Amino acid sequence: MLHSSASAEQLCLASPVRREPEPVSVKTINHDVVAAEYAVRGAIAIKSTAYQEQLKEGKDGLPFDKVYQCNIGNPQILGQKPISFFRQVLSLCEYPELMEHPAAADIYPPDAIARAKEYLDNIPGGVGAYSESKGAVILRQHVAKGIAERDGHPCNFEDLWLTDGASPGVHYMMKTLLRNEQDCILCPIPQYPLYSATIKLYGGTLLPYFLEEGRDWQATVAHLQEQVDTARSQGKQVRALVVINPGNPTGQVLDWENQELLIKFCKQEQLVLLADEVYQTNIYAAGREFLSFKKVLMEMGPEYSGHVPLVSMNSISKGYFGECGRRGGYFELVNFPQDVKDQLYKVASISLCPNVSGQICMALIMNPPQPGDPSHELFAKERDGILESLKRRAELVVDTFRSMEGVSCNEVEGSMYAFPRLTVPPAAVKAAANQGKPADFLYCMELLDQTGIVTVPGSGFGQEPGTFHVRTTILPPEADMAQVVQKFSEFHESFMRRYKGENGGS
Amino acid sequence: MLHSSASAEQLCLASPVRREPEPVSVKTINHDVVAAEYAVRGAIAIKSTAYQEQLKEGKDGLPFDKVYQCNIGNPQILGQKPISFFRQVLSLCEYPELMEHPAAADIYPPDAIARAKEYLDNIPGGVGAYSESKGAVILRQHVAKGIAERDGHPCNFEDLWLTDGASPGVHYMMKTLLRNEQDCILCPIPQYPLYSATIKLYGGTLLPYFLEEGRDWQATVAHLQEQVDTARSQGKQVRALVVINPGNPTGQVLDWENQELLIKFCKQEQLVLLADEVYQTNIYAAGREFLSFKKVLMEMGPEYSGHVPLVSMNSISKGYFGECGRRGGYFELVNFPQDVKDQLYKVASISLCPNVSGQICMALIMNPPQPGDPSHELFAKERDGILESLKRRAELVVDTFRSMEGVSCNEVEGSMYAFPRLTVPPAAVKAAANQGKPADFLYCMELLDQTGIVTVPGSGFGQEPGTFHVRTTILPPEADMAQVVQKFSEFHESFMRRYKGENGGS
Repeated sequence: MLHSSASAEQLCLASPVRREPEPVSVKTINHDVVAAEYAVRGAIAIKSTAYQEQLKEGKDGLPFDKVYQCNIGNPQILGQKPISFFRQVLSLCEYPELMEHPAAADIYPPDAIARAKEYLDNIPGGVGAYSESKGAVILRQHVAKGIAERDGHPCNFEDLWLTDGASPGVHYMMKTLLRNEQDCILCPIPQYPLYSATIKLYGGTLLPYFLEEGRDWQATVAHLQEQVDTARSQGKQVRALVVINPGNPTGQVLDWENQELLIKFCKQEQLVLLADEVYQTNIYAAGREFLSFKKVLMEMGPEYSGHVPLVSMNSISKGYFGECGRRGGYFELVNFPQDVKDQLYKVASISLCPNVSGQICMALIMNPPQPGDPSHELFAKERDGILESLKRRAELVVDTFRSMEGVSCNEVEGSMYAFPRLTVPPAAVKAAANQGKPADFLYCMELLDQTGIVTVPGSGFGQEPGTFHVRTTILPPEADMAQVVQKFSEFHESFMRRYKGENGGS
Repeated sequence: MLHSSASAEQLCLASPVRREPEPVSVKTINHDVVAAEYAVRGAIAIKSTAYQEQLKEGKDGLPFDKVYQCNIGNPQILGQKPISFFRQVLSLCEYPELMEHPAAADIYPPDAIARAKEYLDNIPGGVGAYSESKGAVILRQHVAKGIAERDGHPCNFEDLWLTDGASPGVHYMMKTLLRNEQDCILCPIPQYPLYSATIKLYGGTLLPYFLEEGRDWQATVAHLQEQVDTARSQGKQVRALVVINPGNPTGQVLDWENQELLIKFCKQEQLVLLADEVYQTNIYAAGREFLSFKKVLMEMGPEYSGHVPLVSMNSISKGYFGECGRRGGYFELVNFPQDVKDQLYKVASISLCPNVSGQICMALIMNPPQPGDPSHELFAKERDGILESLKRRAELVVDTFRSMEGVSCNEVEGSMYAFPRLTVPPAAVKAAANQGKPADFLYCMELLDQTGIVTVPGSGFGQEPGTFHVRTTILPPEADMAQVVQKFSEFHESFMRRYKGENGGS
C-alpha cells in the first residue's frame, strides 16, 4: 500500500494531473484579496449610503432626517468650501479659452491667470495629455520648492513621485518591499486601515506596535525593539516602519525627540521609514508644530541624513484644502538607491501617470499665493478661517466625549479625528459577541441606526485587546456641530442605560 | 554525517535562524516588480525625454529640431484640441462661481451650464469630495445610459466601476484572478504591455496566443484550444482571455463571427473574457463597425448571455476625445457572482475613489450633446473632424510603410496604431544581438537618434519569433505628417543601405 501510494505520488510529480476549469467565484479568486479588510468603507458606511438614499426618496420612518458622515475625512462633502485660488487656476487650465475672454480680468485675479499660463506653457498638452509617469516637471519643481521652504533643506524634484492621492504611494511601497508572508511591516496600532489592507493585499504580514493611549499615543522604542527581535528570531524579516504623523485615527503630533528616536531605530534595524504626513497642516494644539521626518533626519548629522531610507507622503485631500475627490498627492524618496528608484519609476509607469489636475492642485498647495500677491489676502483668510474653525471643533468634540459616562479622550492635537475610548457595559460586549462583532461595532451601528451619525469602530483600526474606541471626524460644519454632539451624547446615555438595564442594572 | 545533517535540518524547522536585516536594494525587493517590463515607457521613451530637454535648452548638435512622440497614444500632446463641450462642463464643475457670473451666458452654451448644474446638484460635495468607490451614482447612470444605447441592451449602473483610466480595471482583475504562478491569463501576442506587466506584477503567468498577421491579426480557436489544453495538462489553470478590440498594437477590428467564436470558447473553458474596448470609437476601415462583446454576448441566447463572465473596459484617453491626462475610464461586469463583485468593490475602496473630474468626463463621453441641443453642432463638427483626419492619417501611414523596402503593413482598421513588419538585413540582427537587443529595438533607437521620431519596437509587445515590427501611432497632426513619413522613409532607406553594406552588400 505504502509503496504503491509513493509511486502514484512520483507519477504525479512527473506528469501533473490535468486541471479542470475553475469558474470565477469567491472561492477561486486570490485569497489575499478576500482576506483584506477596509473598515472605513465597510458595513456601517454601506448602510449609511442606503439611509441616504431612503432620505433622498423621501421615505419616512427613520429616527433622523440627515446622515452625518463622520466616518471619512471628506471635508467638502460636509460643506467645506474649496480655496478660491486653487479652483480658479484649475478652471483656467481646464478651459484655457477662458483666459482669452474679455470678462476674464473681471472673473479672475491676475495671479490666477498668470499661474494657469505658467502651468499650461510648461505642461506639454495641458491637462488632457499623459504627463511623465512621476508627474509634470514644472509641477514637481513647484512641489520641491514648497518642501525645501518647509524644511529649510533642499529637495530634488527627481526624487518626487506625484500620485493620485497618497494611497498609490502606499500601494507601490508595499508591492515593492513585500516578497512573501515572512516580510513584515511595522504598523502602529491603532492604524489607518489602508496599511493593514495593502499589507494583506500584497501578501506580507503586519507587525503591530501599540501606541500608548496613556502617553498621548506615543510609541516607545523598547516595545518596537521587542517586536522586531521577536519577529526576526522567528525567521521573519522586518522591512519598514510606518509612522502616521499627525496621527490617524489618534490625532497626536510627534515631537522632535520622539522622531529622532524613531529614525535612530530605523537606522539600527535597517528599516525603511514610511512617513504618512498627510495631515501636516492640521495642527491645533498649543505649542505643537509639524516637523517633517525629512527635516529631522537632515538635521541629525551625516551618520543619519545620508543613510536612513525615508518615504515622505503628502496629499491634497487633507489640510485646510480637503480636495479629496480630485485625487492628488506625492511621495518623496530620501536615501533610496538609484536602481530601486528606477523600479519605482517603472511601477508608476504601469499606471501611465497620475491625473494632471490633481498634480496641479498639489503644486498649488505647496506653492500658494505669497504676501503681496493679489490673491494672498483672500487665500490667507480662507485658509485661516478653516483651520481656526477645525481647532474649535476639535476642542468641542473632545470636551463632549470627556463629559460622557465611561468615556475618556486624548486631545486632538492634529489631523481630523477624535478617537475616544469607551468603557461599555458587559451586556453590550455580550450582545455584540452574539452577532460575532466587537462591542464598538455594535455601538457604532446603533449610533448610525438611531442618529444618522456615521463613525468607524476602533476595531477597524486595531486597538489594545479588551479596549473599545470610536473614530469620528471633527468635520461637520460648526452650524451642525452642536446638534451632532448633542445627538451623540443622548445616544451614548441611552446606550449605557439600555445595556446596564439588560444586565439587571448596577 | 547524513544523520547529523538531518538533525540540524529538524532543528532549523523547530527554531528558525534569526534573520539579519536586509537593507532596501534592488536585490531585496519583490522580484515580480523587478521582472515586470513596460516597453511603452522604456529606454527609448526615456532617451526621447532627454532629447526634448536638450532641444528646450537650445543645445545644438542633434540631427533634428523636434521630437515626434509616436510611441504613446497621447493625442493632445501632439496638438489635438479637446472637445469644447466637455471642457466647458468640466471648468464649470471646477469653479461653480463661474455660473453665477454675468458673463457666464456669453461664455458658455446653456446646455453646458445645465449639465454642470445637474452634476453638481447630484454629486455630494462636487469634484472636491471623495465619491463612492465605484463612482458617483449620477455619473454611473449616465455611463449606463450610453452603454444601453450603444448596445440596445440594458446596463445596470451598479455593475459599473468608474476608474482612473482603463488601467486600474486591469490591475484589479489581475490581482483578483491570479493566485500563484500556475494561474495563467491568455493574452494576444502582440499585446499591449499593460497585460504582460500586470500579470507579472501580480505573480501569474502569461499564456500567449498568437494573432495571425497574414489573416488581419485574427485569432483562431484551434490555436487557443491548443494553448489551453497544453497549459491545463501541465497542471496550470487558465483563468481569463484578454481580447483587445480594436487591436493594440495591431489595429484590427473584430467581426461578429469572430467575437462569437471567442465567447463560445470562453464558455467552454470557463474563462473570464477581459474585453479591452478602449478604441471603440476609433474605426476607420470601410465596412467595419465596433461591436461590443456585451452586445454580441447578449444576442447569443440565454445559454451564453447569462453565463459567460465578461469585463468590458473603456477609457476617456482614446477615441476622438483623447483626454489621457485626466485619467478616466470604467469597466462593466457581466455575469459575475455578487460575492466576487463585493470583493471588487472592496479592492476599489482601498484606493478610495477615482478622480471625480475623470468620472465626469467619462459620463460626458457616454452621454454627449444630442441633435437639437445647443452644443450639438459644434460637438459633431469637432468629433467628426478628428475622426476623419485620423482616418486620412491611418491611410497615409499604411501607404508609406507599404512603399518601403522589406516592409509589409496590414490595414489600420481601427485604434491609433500601425504595426508594420520589417525584414531587416542579417547584419542588423547581428549588430543588435551584440548589444543584447532584438533588431527592432536597434531600428527604433536609431530612428530616434537620427530623426527624433519615437516609436516602440515590436519586441515590446511580443511577436512571432524571428519577426520584427515597429509600433507607431497615427497621431502627429496632419500638418506635420508629411514630414514625419518622409523622415521615416529616408531613415529606413539609410538603415537598409547601411546594414546591407556592412554585410558586404547583396
